[in-house]
Amino acid sequence: MKTCTDETVIPSKTDIPVVGKAKIKNPISFGRFVSEDDAVLVNISKRNVEKNRQSKKAPEHTYFEPAGPRSRVYFDPSKTKVAIVTCGGLCPGLNDVIRAIVMTAHHQYNVSSVLGIRYGLAGFIPQYEYDVVELTPDHVSRIHEFGGTILGSSRGPQSTEEIVDALERLNVSILFMIGGDGTMRAASKVVAEISDRHLAISVVGLPKTIDNDINFASPSFGFDTAVETAATAIKGAHIEAMGAPWGIGLVKVMGRHAGFIAAQSALSCQEVNFVLIPEDPFDIEGKNGFLAALEKRMRERGNAVIVMAEGAGQDLLEVSEETDPSGNVCLSDVATLLRRHILRHFQDKDITPNLKYIDPSYIIRSVPANANDRIYCSFLGINAVHAGMSGRTGLVISRWNGKYVHIPMELVTQGKKRINLCSNYWRAVLESTGQPLNMKNEPEAS
Amino acid sequence: MKTCTDETVIPSKTDIPVVGKAKIKNPISFGRFVSEDDAVLVNISKRNVEKNRQSKKAPEHTYFEPAGPRSRVYFDPSKTKVAIVTCGGLCPGLNDVIRAIVMTAHHQYNVSSVLGIRYGLAGFIPQYEYDVVELTPDHVSRIHEFGGTILGSSRGPQSTEEIVDALERLNVSILFMIGGDGTMRAASKVVAEISDRHLAISVVGLPKTIDNDINFASPSFGFDTAVETAATAIKGAHIEAMGAPWGIGLVKVMGRHAGFIAAQSALSCQEVNFVLIPEDPFDIEGKNGFLAALEKRMRERGNAVIVMAEGAGQDLLEVSEETDPSGNVCLSDVATLLRRHILRHFQDKDITPNLKYIDPSYIIRSVPANANDRIYCSFLGINAVHAGMSGRTGLVISRWNGKYVHIPMELVTQGKKRINLCSNYWRAVLESTGQPLNMKNEPEAS
Amino acid sequence: MKTCTDETVIPSKTDIPVVGKAKIKNPISFGRFVSEDDAVLVNISKRNVEKNRQSKKAPEHTYFEPAGPRSRVYFDPSKTKVAIVTCGGLCPGLNDVIRAIVMTAHHQYNVSSVLGIRYGLAGFIPQYEYDVVELTPDHVSRIHEFGGTILGSSRGPQSTEEIVDALERLNVSILFMIGGDGTMRAASKVVAEISDRHLAISVVGLPKTIDNDINFASPSFGFDTAVETAATAIKGAHIEAMGAPWGIGLVKVMGRHAGFIAAQSALSCQEVNFVLIPEDPFDIEGKNGFLAALEKRMRERGNAVIVMAEGAGQDLLEVSEETDPSGNVCLSDVATLLRRHILRHFQDKDITPNLKYIDPSYIIRSVPANANDRIYCSFLGINAVHAGMSGRTGLVISRWNGKYVHIPMELVTQGKKRINLCSNYWRAVLESTGQPLNMKNEPEAS
Amino acid sequence: MKTCTDETVIPSKTDIPVVGKAKIKNPISFGRFVSEDDAVLVNISKRNVEKNRQSKKAPEHTYFEPAGPRSRVYFDPSKTKVAIVTCGGLCPGLNDVIRAIVMTAHHQYNVSSVLGIRYGLAGFIPQYEYDVVELTPDHVSRIHEFGGTILGSSRGPQSTEEIVDALERLNVSILFMIGGDGTMRAASKVVAEISDRHLAISVVGLPKTIDNDINFASPSFGFDTAVETAATAIKGAHIEAMGAPWGIGLVKVMGRHAGFIAAQSALSCQEVNFVLIPEDPFDIEGKNGFLAALEKRMRERGNAVIVMAEGAGQDLLEVSEETDPSGNVCLSDVATLLRRHILRHFQDKDITPNLKYIDPSYIIRSVPANANDRIYCSFLGINAVHAGMSGRTGLVISRWNGKYVHIPMELVTQGKKRINLCSNYWRAVLESTGQPLNMKNEPEAS
Repeated sequence: MKTCTDETVIPSKTDIPVVGKAKIKNPISFGRFVSEDDAVLVNISKRNVEKNRQSKKAPEHTYFEPAGPRSRVYFDPSKTKVAIVTCGGLCPGLNDVIRAIVMTAHHQYNVSSVLGIRYGLAGFIPQYEYDVVELTPDHVSRIHEFGGTILGSSRGPQSTEEIVDALERLNVSILFMIGGDGTMRAASKVVAEISDRHLAISVVGLPKTIDNDINFASPSFGFDTAVETAATAIKGAHIEAMGAPWGIGLVKVMGRHAGFIAAQSALSCQEVNFVLIPEDPFDIEGKNGFLAALEKRMRERGNAVIVMAEGAGQDLLEVSEETDPSGNVCLSDVATLLRRHILRHFQDKDITPNLKYIDPSYIIRSVPANANDRIYCSFLGINAVHAGMSGRTGLVISRWNGKYVHIPMELVTQGKKRINLCSNYWRAVLESTGQPLNMKNEPEAS
Repeated sequence: MKTCTDETVIPSKTDIPVVGKAKIKNPISFGRFVSEDDAVLVNISKRNVEKNRQSKKAPEHTYFEPAGPRSRVYFDPSKTKVAIVTCGGLCPGLNDVIRAIVMTAHHQYNVSSVLGIRYGLAGFIPQYEYDVVELTPDHVSRIHEFGGTILGSSRGPQSTEEIVDALERLNVSILFMIGGDGTMRAASKVVAEISDRHLAISVVGLPKTIDNDINFASPSFGFDTAVETAATAIKGAHIEAMGAPWGIGLVKVMGRHAGFIAAQSALSCQEVNFVLIPEDPFDIEGKNGFLAALEKRMRERGNAVIVMAEGAGQDLLEVSEETDPSGNVCLSDVATLLRRHILRHFQDKDITPNLKYIDPSYIIRSVPANANDRIYCSFLGINAVHAGMSGRTGLVISRWNGKYVHIPMELVTQGKKRINLCSNYWRAVLESTGQPLNMKNEPEAS
Repeated sequence: MKTCTDETVIPSKTDIPVVGKAKIKNPISFGRFVSEDDAVLVNISKRNVEKNRQSKKAPEHTYFEPAGPRSRVYFDPSKTKVAIVTCGGLCPGLNDVIRAIVMTAHHQYNVSSVLGIRYGLAGFIPQYEYDVVELTPDHVSRIHEFGGTILGSSRGPQSTEEIVDALERLNVSILFMIGGDGTMRAASKVVAEISDRHLAISVVGLPKTIDNDINFASPSFGFDTAVETAATAIKGAHIEAMGAPWGIGLVKVMGRHAGFIAAQSALSCQEVNFVLIPEDPFDIEGKNGFLAALEKRMRERGNAVIVMAEGAGQDLLEVSEETDPSGNVCLSDVATLLRRHILRHFQDKDITPNLKYIDPSYIIRSVPANANDRIYCSFLGINAVHAGMSGRTGLVISRWNGKYVHIPMELVTQGKKRINLCSNYWRAVLESTGQPLNMKNEPEAS
Repeated sequence: MKTCTDETVIPSKTDIPVVGKAKIKNPISFGRFVSEDDAVLVNISKRNVEKNRQSKKAPEHTYFEPAGPRSRVYFDPSKTKVAIVTCGGLCPGLNDVIRAIVMTAHHQYNVSSVLGIRYGLAGFIPQYEYDVVELTPDHVSRIHEFGGTILGSSRGPQSTEEIVDALERLNVSILFMIGGDGTMRAASKVVAEISDRHLAISVVGLPKTIDNDINFASPSFGFDTAVETAATAIKGAHIEAMGAPWGIGLVKVMGRHAGFIAAQSALSCQEVNFVLIPEDPFDIEGKNGFLAALEKRMRERGNAVIVMAEGAGQDLLEVSEETDPSGNVCLSDVATLLRRHILRHFQDKDITPNLKYIDPSYIIRSVPANANDRIYCSFLGINAVHAGMSGRTGLVISRWNGKYVHIPMELVTQGKKRINLCSNYWRAVLESTGQPLNMKNEPEAS
């Protein structure tokens, strides 16, 4: 029986640090400012509220600070220089976030300068000799129509000292860091180093993950676009599977440790028969194994579509010791293993399956953001500038229960989000595919 | 100065009626069932929670019942016949909702029959002689790839008695009604009539509105797709405006009383200079009027893109007395008025603007749902079946704070949702367009 | 009975003038050059070949000169300045043509400068004070991803003298004019004026027409993209028509004097029941009229989709005397007339049709070119540069029988292309729609 | 130096055989019929015409018979049963061809029945026990919105005798065979067997090849759609290459023996720096080799996009003896080889390239046809029915010089079409990419 983790993680501390007291009148022209006495409930489950009430240990409610402009800012806009860096793999919407930061910083706050750091954290390090680019509204006005990041990106850590040296040298007041959980950990170190040096530099994070596996970033930007793009590959696999006798379509999508893209794109296609994800280990052979279930499906319906996250079934392979430049363990290729097993399984029964393998790979992360992600990224970028100008630091911008909020940076780097196998969400996937609840064989009694 | 309404409407009563006690073991194979002691907080604003706490009149918290399968159902699946009807104008995702209901009813509950009612409520009325269609999984398996509704739809009310007569005659146990707030009001009457006749028939509503203007349906299904489609028209207007001297692109999008499509598609395009919505009246002429602002923009930048909701500026026209078959007041055409005024305004100054008018009209509502809406519609349909099988009635399925919930039908028909002019959302639109906060002239002192 | 015009127009003269003898070795690095003894047969119909053979008046064959690089060029590349101007309404692919000219001129010929003239012919005229822009490879490298023209455009004629004055003042050696048949006529005047002044300036035309109605430009660039875009509007109309009782979808597409977009997009959709085009007059009322045919279709199938070119049925309206800035006669709105007649016709029989009208208007011409048009436009632009460098003038680049050729400018301005009502093409449209061959009533015998 | 083949292949014989004399009046309602004295010139090059004239061996002109309806048909429509079979790999447009055949056969000729043979030629063979499906207009009315083939397909030959047995048993009068050159060879054998048995059964071929490599099928249907889809993968590779330091995007597309998809999609993207095709062998190492050229590009511009046809560089690998079920030789994976070499080459110079590999594989062939291919496929299907009804056999329907024609079946199976390395077309690719004309090292002098 699967063990089910509780879905709700309630943070005990949600305060956001500041680099100094905000005393300057906010120059933006529109609107009522966010009032500091409002906040967004973290937990919206009755059961949890009541548990907290009874336990009397935890506070009954925990809140996140709402994002948005404050009536007072810390940094003097006309003297403020901000910088943007994009790190790690591509993700739809990076250019939208960049654009929103540049537009808000320039048009709302009239900051003196927005710098673009080239090629990720490496762009701070003198030895690489990458130029810093000045980002103006004209420069960025149409970048949201392109995928990727106009700044370029790179993987892997760089010296925290050298990064802060560069921020000092460039006179940066606010640094916007867009990247994955590795980048957010690097950001935390930068915040600590800034604090040690008693500098007044804000660091605002914008969590990025194509896999949707960062806590408190839900969903992560670009995920919707990635799913939409993955769905076209799955549709192709479905057409191929139906177009031949004993047709099988196998699609591998991104998802190293979390199967969200696989699950979500299967839900959006409604033509998938098996979703294999890292969270739910399975056996290939055996009475309850994947091949038995696949054969059953094939005999009943004549074809099958399988969507696997790249990290699914890693336990079936010997663990590799290799890591990529960001320190991620290199995954062995389960798709190859699976294809070999499927072919052999049916050939042993004198059946030649028409197995078509599709790996959309980087296509799904290099497309421009769709309308939904475009808006989401705009709001993330806008709110990042408001947060930075107010003097806040060590936070990320996210959406929680539908509201844009400030979340302490350390919350998003504690653990990773996974698909909860006991959730309605995963049940909906299983219902949609019709795959067995469990594809593990019972351990033999000894 | 604009008056700002408070965003939060807290319902006092969120209980869902039932047609009878659920005693039968739920036959579905997966998962843990929804536990009745959990619920979803309606209000997630700290300020409101504390207000309630202090007032001691209202309960501190109000909850919505979570959607999902219950361990016990009321209707005996093998003897249950369900029916689906789609009413009012088209909206992306209708076929996805139909498909999800059919698939869940058949595959999860093995109901005896799913009936499709043709052409809206008229399909119940004998005089129209529309056939009822049997909906099988094979029949619906690919309908989600098409826009529209395979059942057809129609506008306008029909006799509640005749509807309930038809339900009795057809032996329907659960009726799924997909439609706008008029349809939800009709549904409430059907629920009352069923109750008066002491029948055990559940009615489950699925609120549909391309305008995104139904309370507690947020966002409404199909809205994301509609915005994405409207955005292509706006992009065209932008290209046209830039392609000619004194180029102006004017786009009219749906939105009779609420400007959500206009606002949201402007946010997604980032190339719009004016968004005109019904919620925010404006003057055309005068120092602060729209034309003055337009001219300023044109002189500074050489071109402009205007997006107007069809219901914007209705006060500028004489009120029409006409209504359409659903009883909606016919709107006069402000776009025509605006075009005339713009042309005259510039011609008076010896300028010939290149004004290009685009009305995508029905294109934006007849497209198939995008991936995001497809998933949303699936969950709405799945949860509608679970709700109906449990014996609940007089409710709608919606998403609240990110969770699927049961909402009493009367909540969604009380008032309509509007853009809050004091919200961060509207401020983001104004910031994105750069249009004046207010395009009304001061009333003259007398 | 319809009179059928013969499809083939055989030009008697296909020579291309030159501004001087090409003596300079072509610097481009690739390939065999076009040999001047080859050519492309104009006429490929056996019947016409034999008619010519027998008549002995005309030469048996007429040929077009093939496009492509010549071994010798007239202009000295390093001293050559070229200019590009885009005129008239937008059309998909304009930016692709611009890009191809810039890239070929710079990378293949290393010309000294490529100038972009802003806002059409007006850009030559000093009084408008439009800047000339320098077009570099970097400047244009991604413009093909956007619709419209980065140069801007305008309608209407300008003084030929002033245009040639500007060419002299700017030291332009080759002028590339992209525009409709009005522009090609203007180009011919510019060629004549240049000749009168004994200047060595080449003028190369690139015929542009969204309506596909220019002779010897077949199909015109952007047409395929326009059809693809129009098809989405028609698809919407089909969905609307099927979604309601007595549903009728009416779509108006571009096509002032030729119905190619209407016909072609109907062929691509396969869901259209009536195509109304300017070439085929019809009656609305009467036994054979359009309404009788529409009613027959509605009674048999319950719905109908009608696609009309904007110029269809102009004889049904009083002729307007108005013209637009390019001198085109303003068309009255037959769509409005048709809608009124349809509604009244059915209401008189106590039927309320659900008539949905869609006018995609400028959407179809402002989109970026699709892959097919992108390639076509590239070849047009590349070959235009080769033609200009060789010293040819007074020609346009086109594709004939699948080969890129040089066509004398006057051939494309003699008459306009129309749909031949006796062709297999129009028959395929009629077969696809099932509409009557003839919707004109017999004249009454007197 | 490359050897350049002459582009023009002039067939000596273009007559189409018939199964019997057409005596029955054609029942179709529209139009003038094709007159048998017209024809389409095969050769449109002046040089070839004159060569023929001088040689006096060949006839001066060769013509193809035009496709279209004849005034007399051979088969009695009301007693005619036709059958459709789709063979080999998927290709966009298969369903459009099927639909057009069914619609024309039913609506224009009122044939008694259209049979769909399941899963290719295997569908004729009793042992596989595949059902034959009856194809009605209702059944096929929306199939063109889906990719693939509703009939299913399979690879490989089947017994000619058994196929003709099945045709006799099913009383088929006309068989439409859609497939690649293997299928066309099988069709020729079926025609011969039918002739030997003195049966009156027509066989009409519709050549299908995603690679666009069949002679006299130019371009093949679905090719335009495939290119459009491949272009999105290339765009992704370009975004990836620009998004990282030393970024390289490598895309593999279909094209076993001909590089048309690679070349055409590179032309449509305009962002490709190397196109590697089977027709143009290259060295990897060495002074003139691919890696030297790649390094040059990387040092100059910082990134590169490479598009390779799957069959490119096969000579670099040891030849495999394996064949797939259709008898095609299995290609070794040059992409893997290339990736290894690229990585090692740069690592040897202490550079870590960011190499992103994208293989869109089956995605590009399983999508629905675009508007252009949809129309093309319709005309192919329509004309196939006209040809079959007229009693013609042993022919294929194709487009030549822009006209639909009948081509003898043996012409399309003689040799395969390749990219002519001396053509303007390939030069345009080289110009667009900027890659060296030749990436082969000189053989060492001995």
